[in-house]
Amino acid sequence: MAAPKTNLPVDPARIQDVIDGLARLTEPGRPYTRRAFTALFPAGRDFLLEKFQAAGLETRVDAAGNLVARRAGKKPGLGTIMLGSHSDTVPDGGRYDGIAGVAVALEVARSLADQGIELDHDLEVVDFLAEEVSIFGVSCIGSRGMAGVLPEEWFSRESNGLTLEQGIRDAGGDPARIAVEARKDIAAFLELHIEQGPVLETEKRDIGVVTAIAGITRIEIIVQGRADHAGTTPMGNRADALAAAARLVTGIEALAKSLSDGPSHFTATVGEFSIEPNAANVVPSRVRLLIDARAEDRAAMDLFAASLDLMAEQLGRETGTVIEAPRRISDNPPTPGDPMLLDVLDAACEVAGATHRRMASGAGHDTAWMARVTRSAMIFVPCLGGRSHAPEEFAETDDIALGAAVLFNAVIQLDKI
Amino acid sequence: MAAPKTNLPVDPARIQDVIDGLARLTEPGRPYTRRAFTALFPAGRDFLLEKFQAAGLETRVDAAGNLVARRAGKKPGLGTIMLGSHSDTVPDGGRYDGIAGVAVALEVARSLADQGIELDHDLEVVDFLAEEVSIFGVSCIGSRGMAGVLPEEWFSRESNGLTLEQGIRDAGGDPARIAVEARKDIAAFLELHIEQGPVLETEKRDIGVVTAIAGITRIEIIVQGRADHAGTTPMGNRADALAAAARLVTGIEALAKSLSDGPSHFTATVGEFSIEPNAANVVPSRVRLLIDARAEDRAAMDLFAASLDLMAEQLGRETGTVIEAPRRISDNPPTPGDPMLLDVLDAACEVAGATHRRMASGAGHDTAWMARVTRSAMIFVPCLGGRSHAPEEFAETDDIALGAAVLFNAVIQLDKI
Ligand SMILES: NC(=O)NCCC(=O)O
Ligand SMILES: NC(=O)NCCC(=O)O
Repeated sequence: MAAPKTNLPVDPARIQDVIDGLARLTEPGRPYTRRAFTALFPAGRDFLLEKFQAAGLETRVDAAGNLVARRAGKKPGLGTIMLGSHSDTVPDGGRYDGIAGVAVALEVARSLADQGIELDHDLEVVDFLAEEVSIFGVSCIGSRGMAGVLPEEWFSRESNGLTLEQGIRDAGGDPARIAVEARKDIAAFLELHIEQGPVLETEKRDIGVVTAIAGITRIEIIVQGRADHAGTTPMGNRADALAAAARLVTGIEALAKSLSDGPSHFTATVGEFSIEPNAANVVPSRVRLLIDARAEDRAAMDLFAASLDLMAEQLGRETGTVIEAPRRISDNPPTPGDPMLLDVLDAACEVAGATHRRMASGAGHDTAWMARVTRSAMIFVPCLGGRSHAPEEFAETDDIALGAAVLFNAVIQLDKI
Repeated sequence: MAAPKTNLPVDPARIQDVIDGLARLTEPGRPYTRRAFTALFPAGRDFLLEKFQAAGLETRVDAAGNLVARRAGKKPGLGTIMLGSHSDTVPDGGRYDGIAGVAVALEVARSLADQGIELDHDLEVVDFLAEEVSIFGVSCIGSRGMAGVLPEEWFSRESNGLTLEQGIRDAGGDPARIAVEARKDIAAFLELHIEQGPVLETEKRDIGVVTAIAGITRIEIIVQGRADHAGTTPMGNRADALAAAARLVTGIEALAKSLSDGPSHFTATVGEFSIEPNAANVVPSRVRLLIDARAEDRAAMDLFAASLDLMAEQLGRETGTVIEAPRRISDNPPTPGDPMLLDVLDAACEVAGATHRRMASGAGHDTAWMARVTRSAMIFVPCLGGRSHAPEEFAETDDIALGAAVLFNAVIQLDKI
């Protein structure tokens, strides 16, 4: 995107060096896979620890298993400005999702030191534990923990004989102290992340200033039909669960398209879909589908859910199937970015010479959890084709460095407030 | 259906006794499961063997593993009238599918003997091997074999270390002799089967005289979209394989409904359907669906296939997905019933006092393969709710016995021709 800037307050090569170093620490033959709670994860942590220490930062692992590196400010008690993201990946993931944000946070700290800039505030760089949906089926373990909202009933979740509680302990955390150590001293939290969507690339902008992280609601629908012999049951005599579910999928797509027409971010996706008995000569008796709906605007989500209820009810009647009332299996509200921070980030883009726009995040991020305990906001940098969670995931060094410069400028600005 | 007839030439209780005896031979705790090529199958065969021998029939297992019981006629060389069906079941199947036809065939032979009727023709009762789709993924092993059209390349098909070749041998057959022993001496073949559909029950008729066994064509379609992040990819920017496939399913159903509007039997069912990656927050990248289409009229099948090609091509264009040309993975033409036999069966219904109609069979049957080597036809008796391939499968003793009377009458009639 951006023509390489020559007057940046950060060093692009050092950022890329961290990204490349972590990219080498992948499951053999499976680029780029470094899952939280696997044997490989600590290798990434060791790599980061060494970099953090080489930068003169004071490191520790907090109760929730986050790796935290600190540079003390001149005025203890003003609170901490925190920057960071996560170093874990999805299976067969990419080199930038989360990782770019950690590398950039470190680079801001290093650049401040290089330029002899001493902040009034303490500055912390964080690598959150297990942002991606982990082997325990839940995401954002570390940021939920730091915010004091990690549900204790999740501790006993188990995967392959490992509990989440033990997993946190293995990462160096102390589950029993998560609640008491919930952070109340943070003045502001900022995260840089790749966009994971096509908007910046398409519009040729350098930076997205994130107005809100969309709320994510997962809705399960079961369509119950009747298994009949596919050859002998006349077409007019069926309760075909797949035929009914197909109309539901089409309706959900149309509804989502109309809700996404406005300026506010909305998506709905049927990502999981399975049929029973799934046999060539049997009319499908049952379909389970799972909708992932995301809205910047809570009212849009409520409208979607209400329309879905109506649609399901009507389709059940029309198709002779039984469509149970759609069930919200998880429901997180949208998280607006802190208005003051958004203004600071806009100004920081101008100072860095970065073209920018405000936009919502359709993806979930650690920032949404940090917003529970402090002013929080994030910026996006462009990524190739909007692709993420895949080995092809790619972002230009210069685009990431420009984002680092924006954060650098924002930190300088925030320190004065 | 029928009020119990008191003047039947057959004994309903003896028919029911065979059905009940086989029903007891099921996998423990899994009514009613007696799969071909499992350890339980020979138990059913032993039960039948004893019944056949007690009825004074001369028994053997032919090269294709069919159990054949013979009552010699007065005029050797006239050819054989053969009656029968199959005793194997689907997993969790019923007590009547196939079994009723074997029980009735035996009862016709016994009743002829009881009444001292000697036929000019030889009469044979057959229990075909493995009519249902077997562990080898193919159906109608025995009837294909008897007709000399069992593909030899299937012999090496393997399931759990067993080859089809060895499976036939275990059943008492001799695969090497199947081709040479293909039957050329059969004068007529008749099969009784439960309808497996709701038509006779709904219309309160006793007997369906089967005009044709529908051709079965299986068509596979792959819809290739693009995996994208469900939260960040705008609705207008997707190639959602599931959304495209859903419209295909709806189109297939509508097309099948219109083709089934006429007098000729047509069904199309999407019975297998799976999506990738099937993850909550990823836009589906790939769908595979398998269509089971059945037509009494070959022209209707060709029209369906041609319309499907067009529909797939157009949908691919409209949805930004790549829909490969639908691929026929199997394709069997319809098998008309022998016109002379249909007339004989109509007349036999009248003699028995059975209400009847002509109708197509949507299900595949051994009769379709016997039609390759002799005049063949079949009759249906009603079954409860049209249900089959399920433990609830049910048919009334009196309805089955009336069907047996129809076959008895037809045999007497055929013997004179
Ligand atoms: N940023 C990101 O990909 N988060 C994973 C959770 C989600 O948004 O689906
Ligand atoms: N009669 C019957 O159910 N045959 C099984 C094969 C089929 O028609 O699908």
